[in-house]
This record gives sequence, C-alpha cells and structure tokens, in this order.
Amino acid sequence: MTTEFASVPSTYTVGQTLDYIRHVESSRETVYAIYVLDPLSKKLVKTITLRRLITGDPEAPVLSVARPGRLITAIPLMDREDVARLISKYDLLAVPVVDHGRVIGIVTVDDVIDAIVQESTEDVQKFGGMAAINEPYMEVGFWQMMKKRGGWLCALFLSEMLTASAMQRYEGELEKAIVLTLFIPLIMSSGGNSGSQATSLLIRALALRQLEIKDWWRVALREIPSGLALGAMLGLVGIVRIALWQYLGFYDYGEHWMLIALTIAATLVGIVMFGSLTGSMLPFVLQRIGFDPASASAPFVATLVDVTGLVIYFTVASLILRGTLQ
Amino acid sequence: MTTEFASVPSTYTVGQTLDYIRHVESSRETVYAIYVLDPLSKKLVKTITLRRLITGDPEAPVLSVARPGRLITAIPLMDREDVARLISKYDLLAVPVVDHGRVIGIVTVDDVIDAIVQESTEDVQKFGGMAAINEPYMEVGFWQMMKKRGGWLCALFLSEMLTASAMQRYEGELEKAIVLTLFIPLIMSSGGNSGSQATSLLIRALALRQLEIKDWWRVALREIPSGLALGAMLGLVGIVRIALWQYLGFYDYGEHWMLIALTIAATLVGIVMFGSLTGSMLPFVLQRIGFDPASASAPFVATLVDVTGLVIYFTVASLILRGTLQ
Repeated sequence: MTTEFASVPSTYTVGQTLDYIRHVESSRETVYAIYVLDPLSKKLVKTITLRRLITGDPEAPVLSVARPGRLITAIPLMDREDVARLISKYDLLAVPVVDHGRVIGIVTVDDVIDAIVQESTEDVQKFGGMAAINEPYMEVGFWQMMKKRGGWLCALFLSEMLTASAMQRYEGELEKAIVLTLFIPLIMSSGGNSGSQATSLLIRALALRQLEIKDWWRVALREIPSGLALGAMLGLVGIVRIALWQYLGFYDYGEHWMLIALTIAATLVGIVMFGSLTGSMLPFVLQRIGFDPASASAPFVATLVDVTGLVIYFTVASLILRGTLQ
Repeated sequence: MTTEFASVPSTYTVGQTLDYIRHVESSRETVYAIYVLDPLSKKLVKTITLRRLITGDPEAPVLSVARPGRLITAIPLMDREDVARLISKYDLLAVPVVDHGRVIGIVTVDDVIDAIVQESTEDVQKFGGMAAINEPYMEVGFWQMMKKRGGWLCALFLSEMLTASAMQRYEGELEKAIVLTLFIPLIMSSGGNSGSQATSLLIRALALRQLEIKDWWRVALREIPSGLALGAMLGLVGIVRIALWQYLGFYDYGEHWMLIALTIAATLVGIVMFGSLTGSMLPFVLQRIGFDPASASAPFVATLVDVTGLVIYFTVASLILRGTLQ
C-alpha cells in the first residue's frame, strides 16, 4: 500500500482538478485514479480516472466525469489475494483502502503483480511440502533452509512411522507370502500420486474461489467415480504386467499368480479411489479448521494415504488369497 | 494482446495529442501509454504517458514530455511470463508488441494479471503430477479429467514398476530379514518428500529467473550438504524410534536391533541426500532438454527416487547386516 495518491474535494471543477494533478504528478505513485472526497467529512465520495477527466469540460464540477456504478474499495488488513482479485475483476489500476469512509492509502496494480508472483511461489513451495521461503534460493542461509525443510520433513517422517506399525500387524501374512512385499512401493506410490493430483486441482479451485467449502460433497461425488476409473485403469496395467512376467518367465509368482494379480488390481482400485478422495477433501478440511488450503502438500497427502493404503492392501490380500497362503 | 491502443505521429504537439486522446478515449483499452510513431516509417519512436502529457506545454512538441531511457518493448510470440516480468520490472501499465519496428498491439497490465494467475494454476497442477486444466474444476468433463490425470498416472505407474523388479532382486535378503520390509514405506517416502521440497524450490527459482541453467553445480553443492544434514536428522529420529519400541517392548527387532537401527539411519542419510539432489537437478535437466522445468512434479521426483532408494536401502543393509542374516 502507498499513501502517495491524488485526492481532491468534490467542490473542485474539472479544470481545478487537472491543475492540481499537473502540480502533484511527480510526487504521486499514480494519478490515473483520483479520489474525490467530501469537503467536510473527508470521506470518499467517488473514484474518477484521469482518462475521463481530460475529456471533461474544464468549467464542469469534477463529479461530472465520474462513471456510474458502485465504489470499489478494499478494507485494511484485507488479504493480498482478495485485493488482487478486485483489481483483476474490475480492471482497475488501483484500489483505495478505506477505513471508516476515509482513504488511508491505495494498492496499485504493481503491488498486486508482485503479491501474486510471491503468493504463487509460496503456494508451490508449500505444495512441495516445506515452509515458504521469500528470499531467492541462493540467498537463503544453510540453517534457515534446514528450518524451512526440516520441520515438515520430520513431521511427515513421524506420521509415516505409522506405516511401520501397520506392517508389523501384517508381518504374519508377509512371511507367508513374501511376494506381496514386492508390490508395496508400487501400490503406495499410486495412492500418493492420485492424491497429489486431486489436491493440486482443489487447492487452485479454492484459491480462485471457483469452489466454496459447502461444495465439498459435489467434489466428493466427482472424485469417487474418477478415482474408481483411474484405479481400474492402473489395475488393468498391473494385471497385464504380472501376466506378462509370468508367461515370459521373468518372474514366477507361484501357482496362485492369477489371484495375486487380482489382489493388486483390486487394491489399486481401492487405493486410487481413496487417494483421490483424501487428496480432494484435505484442502476443504484445512480451510474448515482455519488453515490455508494451500498447506495441503503432495507429501502430506501421500503420507495420509500410505497408512490406509497398506491396510487396504493387506485386507484385500487376506480376502482374495484366503487359504492359499500357507 | 489488444490492438486498441493510442498512437500519434511525432510531429504532433502536446495539445494536438491531448485533443486526439480526448477524441479516442472511449474506444481504446488504455490511453495511459501513448505510442509516438515516426510519421513516415510508422516505426515506434517513444512511449509517453498521459500523466506526463498533461503536464506539458500545449504548444511544445509531443516528444518534449517523453522521459529519457530506453524503449521497453515485447516481441511477437514472447512468453506471457516474460511480458509479465517486463511490466512488473519497469512498473508499466502496458508494453507495446513491436514487429520490425512497428507496434502491432499492446499487452496491458490486466492481461498480465490474468496470465500470471492462469500460469500459477497450471504450475501447481503440473507439480501435482497431472496435465494442466484451464477450466474451473466443476466444468471439466469426466473424460477430459481422465485424460488429464490418467496419462501421467499411467506413466508414473509404469516407471514405478521398476521398484517391483528391484525388490525381486533382493528377495533373498527380504526372506531372511522380513523386518527390513517394515521400513520400506518410511524410507521411500522420506526420499520422495525431500525430493519434492527441492523440486518446488528450484522450479520457482528458475521460473523467477533467480537461477540459470549454468548455476546447476552451485545448486548441487548446496543440496548435497543440506540433504546429508536433513537425512542425519531423520536418521536420528529413526534410531530413537527403534530403540524406544525395543526398550518399551512394543516390538522385538531381534538381537541385532542396533544394527537394524543403524541400517535405517545410514539409509536415510543416503536417500534424503539423493532425493534432494535428484529433486533439485530434475528441473535443470528438463529445461536443458527443452521442456518446461515446471513439468518436474512431486510424483515424478518420488518415482525417480523410489527405485534408487530401494537399491540404497538393500545395499546398506547387506553391508551393515552382513553375517547376521541367516
């Protein structure tokens, strides 16, 4: 925000206003928007533009060149992104920040561009799973870098430890069918990837105000069939891969290889659906509890999906492979 | 770009230019930047601003209100982000697009805001591991959504299959020490997370032109120690976790539990370092081979790190646990 703006009392004529603008031009950040104030209360009456001002009759009152329409203003402490949205929506060059009817400063389009660029850098960094850094990469000190990255990395590591606990519970099954372990990374990454896709879609849809919190169920109703279809697609690829390796003799999955392929496919359907659903709901949940939806990072979603993914995998495996694992 | 801009021949006076601007004001997208052309060749001579124009002597030539300094222009087919950078850097309201010296149109600050917002949406979606979508979330059809997400999901799935092949190679070790499998998800996710952090940092640093391709080695020299330190931090947490579980009796890792803890810690140091390095180099590699560095998604990096992560894990395990796995 800058306080270097041009304002005139509403008693001025077009000619007086132009003279004033010529006089202050060099000391104002912008003179393209001119704020017309009530001469007594100093409250903002109307915003006029320089382009309209020069077309006016010099003897006419300054308000004669005002366009009809409501006054677009920002309030103090308004979110930078919301101010940017106002400027972009109404094609303005500046927005006055108004407190109790008085203009305390203006936000110009340059400030907004800088804010949007900085905001999108922060969004990408947060989505990458770290605290946002404003300095250029090479200027961030070693310890600051450790702090910005280490915090989230530790938090994710501690949560991901639940996967080790989950796997301990299924150790018996794992010992009986070591072949199941071969697909753990493949299955878990598919859940994380589908979740990361859904999260990236929803973070932006919420940031651009395309969706509101109350739309969560409409999103869920879209993500469940999408997830099922994407999971089925991967499941099909998985079956083909296992059948090929079995037939070509690259690997012997044992006599029950078809049941194993079926287990992988069914798990993928479940996990990709669960990943898409979790990934799409997380930004809503964060916004609901008062956080920035953009804090929903790809690693965060992957971690959420991983533990449940393992449980889905071993549950499906014990159902399909029941009796064959001796 | 718009062709509704205001231009005058350099033979005009300030007064003539103002009259012309008053006349065309309502039919031009902006009249705040006025392009002064050579009367014969029609080539751009200078850009003047309306705010300076109104301060000029009406009888003086129009060029008398021009500021010194070089002409800032864009070329046809210039990248939207580069035009945005010009506008932001020089605090302009519009940039003329010049072809063979003639103005063929202008890009205004509104166009740039829209472009930056759209660009950052695409960047987040690509970083999430999908093809960019320009329509609002609820307006994208089911099949288009499948196409935008399914392609990358399949590509990542096929690459991730290498993890199954890698694990087959170590099946012997796995059968001897099933306890090693418990930590596979934990270790792999840590590599992916550190890679995702590094990629998000580097994508933005390259997009904002804070770094160039030739700086890759300076980045590598920063990421290697960062990765080692972050890995050591996670390794320490891992050792504490295993020791705690062992002492508290939550799980029995066997008589060699200390060697297992050491294996996990050493692997984490290696994998987090490798993840940070891979994640930071991938955007450079993509830019070098002519792709958008922003195509380096979190899932893409995680997939790259996963296979190598498994190899690191089993190599470290076989070195540290040699002779204890019977």
